[in-house]
Amino acid sequence: MTSSSVSTAETPPGYSDILAAAKRLAGKAVVTPLLESHALNARAGGRILIKPEILQRTGSFKFRGAYNRLGLIPAEDRAAGVVAFSSGNHAQGVAAAAALYGMPATIVMPADAPAIKIANTRGYGAAVELYERGSASREARAEAIAAKLGATVVRPYDDPGIVAGQGTCGLEIAAQADALGAQLDTLLVCCGGGGLASGCAIAFAEVSPATKIYTVEPAGFDDTRRSLTAGERLANAPGQASFCDALLAPTPGALTFSINQRLLAGGFAVSDAEVAAAMAYAFSVLKLVVEPGGAVCLAAVLAGKLDTRGKTVALTLSGGNVDPETHAKAVAAGSV
Amino acid sequence: MTSSSVSTAETPPGYSDILAAAKRLAGKAVVTPLLESHALNARAGGRILIKPEILQRTGSFKFRGAYNRLGLIPAEDRAAGVVAFSSGNHAQGVAAAAALYGMPATIVMPADAPAIKIANTRGYGAAVELYERGSASREARAEAIAAKLGATVVRPYDDPGIVAGQGTCGLEIAAQADALGAQLDTLLVCCGGGGLASGCAIAFAEVSPATKIYTVEPAGFDDTRRSLTAGERLANAPGQASFCDALLAPTPGALTFSINQRLLAGGFAVSDAEVAAAMAYAFSVLKLVVEPGGAVCLAAVLAGKLDTRGKTVALTLSGGNVDPETHAKAVAAGSV
Repeated sequence: MTSSSVSTAETPPGYSDILAAAKRLAGKAVVTPLLESHALNARAGGRILIKPEILQRTGSFKFRGAYNRLGLIPAEDRAAGVVAFSSGNHAQGVAAAAALYGMPATIVMPADAPAIKIANTRGYGAAVELYERGSASREARAEAIAAKLGATVVRPYDDPGIVAGQGTCGLEIAAQADALGAQLDTLLVCCGGGGLASGCAIAFAEVSPATKIYTVEPAGFDDTRRSLTAGERLANAPGQASFCDALLAPTPGALTFSINQRLLAGGFAVSDAEVAAAMAYAFSVLKLVVEPGGAVCLAAVLAGKLDTRGKTVALTLSGGNVDPETHAKAVAAGSV
Repeated sequence: MTSSSVSTAETPPGYSDILAAAKRLAGKAVVTPLLESHALNARAGGRILIKPEILQRTGSFKFRGAYNRLGLIPAEDRAAGVVAFSSGNHAQGVAAAAALYGMPATIVMPADAPAIKIANTRGYGAAVELYERGSASREARAEAIAAKLGATVVRPYDDPGIVAGQGTCGLEIAAQADALGAQLDTLLVCCGGGGLASGCAIAFAEVSPATKIYTVEPAGFDDTRRSLTAGERLANAPGQASFCDALLAPTPGALTFSINQRLLAGGFAVSDAEVAAAMAYAFSVLKLVVEPGGAVCLAAVLAGKLDTRGKTVALTLSGGNVDPETHAKAVAAGSV
């Protein structure tokens, strides 16, 4: 069986792949709205357009890439199912997509993932294999399971089908901003491995090339920001910690970085305290539930990492899968 | 000075007043989206369309009525400002609208209102006068202040200008459902004094007359439900309690009931436990922050108060102004 390596070659997807993904996702994914808050605009001194992927099926943008990628699996390989490794949002995306295609799914997840992510992944019908973070490579583990089952490994970001699926989010942002008569100066994208950023960048290169695109990452896990500056893929220093569980990828993806290096303007990093403040702001002003990793772009705006005065800025809230205790703690800490 | 009684005569607004309100609100109020969740649809066995007025300016639908009503104040009365009495959402709506018109505002609020509502009302620049709930009539107090200042009293619901403003919410729901190709069997509206329900009912009578409209109220404060059944305005029994602070009006409004009696199909009541479960569901599945009073319609659907199987149902999430502790407590209690 070679299905685990199907179409994961490092060929970047093109704009046409994103259009095909959008067609595949129609009626399956949510066309999330583009929101605007008078209060946030006033605070930023500009126009901030919010893409709440927290409202996406499975509570994060990851469903887009997963559903698109699974749709690319050849008919003869579908019965053997899929295997994924993920800290939780890709897990839910793959599990929900697999259920819709009627394919079995096995997901390798860290044992310390948020309880809501593990429960939801199981809830979509997937088998979950927990591992201790920091132990044997989760990729190797997923590959071993896939080899045994003859299943297809669905990588979280470094895969053209995943990138194309995430690109549909960028496609929607551009069209929705256009419908509002807004010319986007800047797009901020939450970044772990770089799948959402690279997908959005490919879409924007076609439909809104003048918009400058930046990643936002947790401080200490700002490998993409540093790599963009250095011009090569750099790893995060060991021993870092952040409660942005969704954004702890060790290095930029090879495929995603090749795209991001070409198309992005740079990156920002935010502290956990800045993220907690953004979660509190989302709660009390925007009335949205955002998980730590999903709040980094809002944190960048609120903390003044970029000059938003007189600018039109779109930002992603990439996910909302957060345990109630973690959320309440962040809202309390971030409100002071 | 007679400005405190300006245009509060009991003449119901018509459809044209709602269209005029929509024009007045354009660019000032948020056109909140109509959201849909695969998970909620699956659970309800039907199609549930969510109107999240939590995303409205000031965090509740009340801004609609307030901004519209203040726009109807004659030019010569504006400098003297407005006075309102409110448990908190109307307070914020009037305060924010007054700031936009450059009018001074004084708001009479119960001392036990959620801290976020008092703080936000002050934040919009209004003077806040607190009173002990159960003490002297808040209406009398507001009238006394208005008489002293020569200001206009802006009632929370029993006013044609308020009802017309809230009706713009119904106008949007009908148009947005239409754009989705959805024929609404049912519309559920959160109900305190009946302003939102009556406004939506006038709009729907014109644009979607086949839709059955129901109020949802907290148990013990289901005066509108009981009044609709009895055919006359009934008061709530004394000594009741509910944490739905926004929906504790003692009786249906005279104006609003005259409309609701003619146009509504009936009402439902939900317990505080059912409301907490809805707040928890909104948090964990919908990723939305909803205050207790804003969650009653969702509670009615989740608790099976009506048969949603095979039906298309729109519901309002009327407000999201809730203190973090109250929210966390409800999410914890509602998750079990």
